[in-house]
Amino acid sequence: MLSATTQTFGRTSGVLRRVTAVTTRSMSASKFTTVDVNDKSGIAILTMNRPPVNGLNLDLLSDIHKSIDEIESNKCRGLILTSASNAVFSAGLDIMEMYKPNQDRLKQFWTSLQDTWLALYGSSVPTAAAINGHSPAGGCLLATSCEYRVMLPNFTIGLNETKLGIVAPKWFMSTFCNVLPRRVAEMALTQGKMFSSDEALHSGLVDELAPTKEEALAKCEKFFASFAKTNSFARAMTKQQYRSKDLQQLEDERQQDLEAFVFFVNQPSVQKGLGAYLEVLKAKSK
Amino acid sequence: MLSATTQTFGRTSGVLRRVTAVTTRSMSASKFTTVDVNDKSGIAILTMNRPPVNGLNLDLLSDIHKSIDEIESNKCRGLILTSASNAVFSAGLDIMEMYKPNQDRLKQFWTSLQDTWLALYGSSVPTAAAINGHSPAGGCLLATSCEYRVMLPNFTIGLNETKLGIVAPKWFMSTFCNVLPRRVAEMALTQGKMFSSDEALHSGLVDELAPTKEEALAKCEKFFASFAKTNSFARAMTKQQYRSKDLQQLEDERQQDLEAFVFFVNQPSVQKGLGAYLEVLKAKSK
Amino acid sequence: MLSATTQTFGRTSGVLRRVTAVTTRSMSASKFTTVDVNDKSGIAILTMNRPPVNGLNLDLLSDIHKSIDEIESNKCRGLILTSASNAVFSAGLDIMEMYKPNQDRLKQFWTSLQDTWLALYGSSVPTAAAINGHSPAGGCLLATSCEYRVMLPNFTIGLNETKLGIVAPKWFMSTFCNVLPRRVAEMALTQGKMFSSDEALHSGLVDELAPTKEEALAKCEKFFASFAKTNSFARAMTKQQYRSKDLQQLEDERQQDLEAFVFFVNQPSVQKGLGAYLEVLKAKSK
Repeated sequence: MLSATTQTFGRTSGVLRRVTAVTTRSMSASKFTTVDVNDKSGIAILTMNRPPVNGLNLDLLSDIHKSIDEIESNKCRGLILTSASNAVFSAGLDIMEMYKPNQDRLKQFWTSLQDTWLALYGSSVPTAAAINGHSPAGGCLLATSCEYRVMLPNFTIGLNETKLGIVAPKWFMSTFCNVLPRRVAEMALTQGKMFSSDEALHSGLVDELAPTKEEALAKCEKFFASFAKTNSFARAMTKQQYRSKDLQQLEDERQQDLEAFVFFVNQPSVQKGLGAYLEVLKAKSK
Repeated sequence: MLSATTQTFGRTSGVLRRVTAVTTRSMSASKFTTVDVNDKSGIAILTMNRPPVNGLNLDLLSDIHKSIDEIESNKCRGLILTSASNAVFSAGLDIMEMYKPNQDRLKQFWTSLQDTWLALYGSSVPTAAAINGHSPAGGCLLATSCEYRVMLPNFTIGLNETKLGIVAPKWFMSTFCNVLPRRVAEMALTQGKMFSSDEALHSGLVDELAPTKEEALAKCEKFFASFAKTNSFARAMTKQQYRSKDLQQLEDERQQDLEAFVFFVNQPSVQKGLGAYLEVLKAKSK
Repeated sequence: MLSATTQTFGRTSGVLRRVTAVTTRSMSASKFTTVDVNDKSGIAILTMNRPPVNGLNLDLLSDIHKSIDEIESNKCRGLILTSASNAVFSAGLDIMEMYKPNQDRLKQFWTSLQDTWLALYGSSVPTAAAINGHSPAGGCLLATSCEYRVMLPNFTIGLNETKLGIVAPKWFMSTFCNVLPRRVAEMALTQGKMFSSDEALHSGLVDELAPTKEEALAKCEKFFASFAKTNSFARAMTKQQYRSKDLQQLEDERQQDLEAFVFFVNQPSVQKGLGAYLEVLKAKSK
């Protein structure tokens, strides 16, 4: 499956770049993700595509995880996580997985989130997020798990769990603290702060802004180019060792983390809150 | 006990604000602290009042701890720590508790400091300090244990223990590092640096400056308003989980921490140093 | 052994400073290091002198370690680490220790590096680096182990291990993270980034720039003066407690750390890489 989709890279910063023989291979065809690899650069674009808002349910998470593994085993030179939507990067965890849940599926769902994070945060491949839409809660987790973030203007990003009446797990916090200063992270976490694109840039939550998705992708590629003179094995080991405390923490506590989540979700008060929230969403969508 | 003390909030930023039916309830009447709760906002002002300098002795610490517990159990919407003095927020640990000490009381004293910190640093209620005077050593510990700090101009704040010939315990350091960048914290701790109000603002040791106590209190209230849309239970859990490593560290080591303090204080060289320091203070006060 | 080498301090900031009775004592005469102590200030200058590039082999490391111990036991008031070269502070680990190594010496070499770091990073004496030349990899480790850094313009510094195909050990990373924000450190470590003097200043990797070695030494002395009013024992304890987690980590894992290094160096691919690199160096030097 070869296609000429790199034409979308033709314009960067308003200047026409010549696209010659470069082709992009669509590596995989999962239901909710696509992976497109540029044969010349070796860079893979992992696109989340579960309309309307990339709600992270078991299926989307499984597809993301599978796609990461595929990119990893193909030794791609970079992984860019982005969205097929022009409005939402990912709206975070799908509430339908938590409302009146089947207990087995609930466990599978959370385990899949853990697996996906472990794969992305600890990926040996350089990672970046082209954040082309809103990115609350779980969406922010995925973005901050990458090594670099480029965001489009006029969107929002943050761990807003306290506003939803829930608590971001420890590993969400560790991921957040790997990017933001401790002081900034604590205040944002307790406030459930959603950062505008400009605030995200200013605080360091994202590294750059770009006016279009294409330019965001180009900036991610430019970030990957900063590794050109490194040994890719040493680079991967360095990243994983640097992140090992965070990764190890979840590895060590993943059973308790799962049990805590299941216990929490099954609280009558939480179920009631989720039900009320769903009513609001239904009313809005009418 | 109802009073109209909110009139003191009448002026903010030079503009007269109308005070209507809002009343402040004096919640408790300990010897060295007062707690005033605004019935409308639910915000409690915890005022330290042990003249002349709010020296933290066993009695003041016990009163602070009791007041925090009271605010906690009354589910107040915020706790503002401040001083009845216009010159000193708190001068830190009272040397009289350490000089030629009764050994039982010495242990009670340190245990009370540990308890007070655990209660304040881990409080489920949003906390802020209106720093209306100098705030060295233990005074700085209390201020940095809060989630937000507003300081009046022309005062000083810092962990100046190395200048006093003592060593700030690990949990003082952790509290400091929750606010300042590591690099800044190490240099300040080893230098025993006292930051001016301006330096404190610039380095991030405090969040804002305010020209008067009233405006400092108003800014603290504004900080609490940033939690308006959060679920208070989720907010509290998020804060406590974020600070859990620091809290757990003292919980795990509090016996050793107590023994180390007692051993240190009883060293002849330390006693000699404290004696000399007291002579200086006496000479100054004449 | 007394000499008038303080004359080199005669000019600071372009103004002639009168040098009167101050003398500098050459404390020790190791093969690859010299220690000069200013009798008035009590400050020791530890100069690395293994031409051409202060490659850290077993002998230079042993001499550095010995010199640190000597300065420590003489209770000097400061230790400034610098280079006899005007071009290179230290080029890092000497590859000749790793290429086709004698296994016993290889272990001694790495153990000596561990010992030197433990002595420098945990030194009770205030430490600073006058970085008067390039400072990659192990050179950067030594510089960041100090409490303060002053660098001359137009040089480079960084942990560039990923560019050399190797992985900086955990304690290199901890040392780096004691200076730089986590976000900056991760990116620099994975990129193997060499910071220019200006970039190092801007990011906080060094604290000041100075146009000449003399002025760099003077700035280091000025940093030491910031401890004038501290109790030196309390200062040392504060520093060591602050750095205890990093120090303890290596103490706890030093055997595994040694084994990992030995295993790594003996990999055929690594030996091949080192051989190729040596060929390049030989070709360059012709």
